[in-house]
Amino acid sequence: MGEFELIARYFDRPVQRAVLGVGDDCALLQTHANTRLAVSTDMLVLGRHFFADVCPFKLGHKALAVNLSDLAACGARPLAFTLALSMPAADEAWLEQFSRGLLALADAHGCELIGGDTTCGPLTICITIFGEIPVLAGRSLALLRSGAVDGDDLYVSGQLGDARLALDALRGQVTLPAGVLEKARARLEMPTPRVALGLALRGIASAAIDISDGLLGDLGHILSSSNVGATVYVDVATSLIAARAEAMELSDGQWRALALSGGDDYELLFTAAPSRGQAVSDAAQASHTPVTRIGHIHAQAGLQLIDRNGVPQPHVYQSFDHFASDASER
Amino acid sequence: MGEFELIARYFDRPVQRAVLGVGDDCALLQTHANTRLAVSTDMLVLGRHFFADVCPFKLGHKALAVNLSDLAACGARPLAFTLALSMPAADEAWLEQFSRGLLALADAHGCELIGGDTTCGPLTICITIFGEIPVLAGRSLALLRSGAVDGDDLYVSGQLGDARLALDALRGQVTLPAGVLEKARARLEMPTPRVALGLALRGIASAAIDISDGLLGDLGHILSSSNVGATVYVDVATSLIAARAEAMELSDGQWRALALSGGDDYELLFTAAPSRGQAVSDAAQASHTPVTRIGHIHAQAGLQLIDRNGVPQPHVYQSFDHFASDASER
Repeated sequence: MGEFELIARYFDRPVQRAVLGVGDDCALLQTHANTRLAVSTDMLVLGRHFFADVCPFKLGHKALAVNLSDLAACGARPLAFTLALSMPAADEAWLEQFSRGLLALADAHGCELIGGDTTCGPLTICITIFGEIPVLAGRSLALLRSGAVDGDDLYVSGQLGDARLALDALRGQVTLPAGVLEKARARLEMPTPRVALGLALRGIASAAIDISDGLLGDLGHILSSSNVGATVYVDVATSLIAARAEAMELSDGQWRALALSGGDDYELLFTAAPSRGQAVSDAAQASHTPVTRIGHIHAQAGLQLIDRNGVPQPHVYQSFDHFASDASER
Repeated sequence: MGEFELIARYFDRPVQRAVLGVGDDCALLQTHANTRLAVSTDMLVLGRHFFADVCPFKLGHKALAVNLSDLAACGARPLAFTLALSMPAADEAWLEQFSRGLLALADAHGCELIGGDTTCGPLTICITIFGEIPVLAGRSLALLRSGAVDGDDLYVSGQLGDARLALDALRGQVTLPAGVLEKARARLEMPTPRVALGLALRGIASAAIDISDGLLGDLGHILSSSNVGATVYVDVATSLIAARAEAMELSDGQWRALALSGGDDYELLFTAAPSRGQAVSDAAQASHTPVTRIGHIHAQAGLQLIDRNGVPQPHVYQSFDHFASDASER
């Protein structure tokens, strides 16, 4: 199977909203008037972002999910994406499953594959995604990292830490009961991008980011962009680990590390004024996405952790850094 | 040096035309009214698209040049691009040179780096590029592969075959005098995207493509998309190899293979009605880009090669296919 047959068989589909899709030198997109185009790109590398034995259907899902999560964090409506794929060989069984996982999630979000590139090489997936954000009175409704202000509440969607727990188990660093591993592994391999919540939070959230490198690390980006500090309620964050409800022998410190710096959560972390509390609840309900208040923003710089009694806790957590010396395979 | 320091040091620059550049979950682009957005993506893999010892400045140039060439083939004006970069380690000397080569070409075309991703892994570069194409009376002025019609002339810009000659020399398959190698190698490593010509050909060319996989292979895409056939003047095409003017001991067959199926030329191959011949010449002159008529389009399907005496020549040339069994390293 050659390059062009491969594209035709697995990735070339009827054009939906794009003016021109797969098959020319460029794809052509027509954006609506009074919108801005949100663009994000992510590259997934074998041995770094996924294991060699990962199910290709799930890998297809995840490759797009992490990009949809970026759109969600900006409050952008998914529009289209390109796929660049490097593979050691054109493995038909693998491509069949990978493309199904990828396109099933794409269809669920009305996000169209409009172009790409395939080449022979180490397994690497690069997706660039496009979304639309309306502009009102000359200002876009994009959720940015830079809008948090003194007094805002800090919220996170869904669960924390379970993806990292699964990763630790797959690396043999912890042992999990089969049922617990299965559920945690679904969080690692099939993350749910919070697109509907991101759309519902337009005009409500003051700042937002998606959690890929760990809660505290990604919160740090909001703090530095917004020039504010935050206090995080450690016990509340830790309660968001679904696996914690199971009978498991991990120390308090281990649970905290999972929730605060686990990474791969792909949840939305966002801020909103206390006066918008009801609007946040309504957005959560409308998007069928649980949201929990896990802290607050203050003018004083820095990141403070407190427990349920208000006692300050040590901040010993590191964000994931792809080029740090301790960045082992993930 | 960590991931975020790396981005800040080499890739984060003041925003020019974008609404929001590097540093949030998404970049934000504002396209003009009555335009379409052209999107293309290319992935370059070590050992496949470039050698390990390639100069990083030149690699940065080429990575963007091949994407600009796709915009040129659509007649799109460069607007912005994203860069996803996988590297074994954050090598500062390498990054310094790579980013300089990349951004020098970007600046020359007013094409802004608006976002990206960096990760640790095998050296892989994925660029997604955006350009604008005006819409007139509801129709975009995009140059597509599908517009060639019976009677059109077939043109190519610039030179053919020298890039492939350099590749063959670097692989040790031919031996070249130092001066010849140097010039040919510049064509391989620092291709010139024909952006100005692509813009000048809007409304003049009936179909266009850029030559990456070889003249005849890429012509095949125009023919199948346009549902026409073509006759190519083999001796004219072969005369476009600059190295042919040097004293070199290659057979006629070798020269022909270089011109007709060499690949990596990044020239524009396009068609236009005979009545637009003067307009093509004017576009070539305005864009300071040589253009040569190398054949014509006919209704009868198929690809015919003829020599200077009109005698049919055998078509024994293969297009480059990344997944074909003979696709050795390039």
